[in-house]
Amino acid sequence: MKKIDVGFLKKIPIFLELSDDKLEMIKNIIKEKTVETESVIIKEGTKGTEMFILLDGEVEVSKTLLLKISGRGMNQGDKSLIRLTGNDYAFFGEMALFVENADRSASVIAKSRCVLAIIEQEDFFKLTESDHEIGYHVLKIIVKIISNRLDKTSKDVLKLTTALSLALER
Amino acid sequence: MKKIDVGFLKKIPIFLELSDDKLEMIKNIIKEKTVETESVIIKEGTKGTEMFILLDGEVEVSKTLLLKISGRGMNQGDKSLIRLTGNDYAFFGEMALFVENADRSASVIAKSRCVLAIIEQEDFFKLTESDHEIGYHVLKIIVKIISNRLDKTSKDVLKLTTALSLALER
Repeated sequence: MKKIDVGFLKKIPIFLELSDDKLEMIKNIIKEKTVETESVIIKEGTKGTEMFILLDGEVEVSKTLLLKISGRGMNQGDKSLIRLTGNDYAFFGEMALFVENADRSASVIAKSRCVLAIIEQEDFFKLTESDHEIGYHVLKIIVKIISNRLDKTSKDVLKLTTALSLALER
Repeated sequence: MKKIDVGFLKKIPIFLELSDDKLEMIKNIIKEKTVETESVIIKEGTKGTEMFILLDGEVEVSKTLLLKISGRGMNQGDKSLIRLTGNDYAFFGEMALFVENADRSASVIAKSRCVLAIIEQEDFFKLTESDHEIGYHVLKIIVKIISNRLDKTSKDVLKLTTALSLALER
């Protein structure tokens, strides 16, 4: 089974700019947890205070594509899916490390027995408040990640608005 | 005319967590510029390396709502508008401070003679790389701002997808 060591943490994108001694400090606040198949690791729309790194196993990431409309059941099966394994250096819920009361933007479900590394917001906050170097280097990468995501989502809004206006024109 | 001092900078949301001596360091890298009415301060879709703070005057912020479709001219007048003045502690282009080659997500046009405080990406980067405390405290707030924006934009995608699927169902 994968060991949480500095060499492994270095491959997680948000820790890319941290030196070995800073990664050692991250390692010290990580907790490990094993969950069984079909466990809900993150549920879209709920609040959470943990970031997860997938060490072993396989998960499915899904996201609602249509709003629930009462009586019409439009939400059935409308999900976009990605599968990630322990070889992907995958992390989820990273926004919870810096944004209080952020809604989870997707669901993550275990598709096998999974081993997870967990970082709690409170532990991480204590660490970054006392060591701004860690906070700065992790935040720089998180800003790039969310900014790319925002860019993509804004382009989707533009395309959807155009498509909607064409559909209504018919 | 407004003077760029520590007391003023403290009221700009992204500098909220900085101490007076750190604000003094920010002040030292700020350049001032006056632009005439109808000047394009930021042009949506272009690249930029500057953040602007509006000191005096009035600007209009606008954003494309529909994609250009050749021959149909759908882009005519489809803009969402906000007006901001020197009393709003308004800043724009803050993503350019941390994200290289980021596209400008909106246009900002001067609607009167405007006085702007300008921070260059390179100057800001030098400052935050040598003083992680500044970088950490500014990034924490920027992450919250973009994360709220992403949240809002994702909800728009969800609503538009639903509306589009209803429109196509008719």
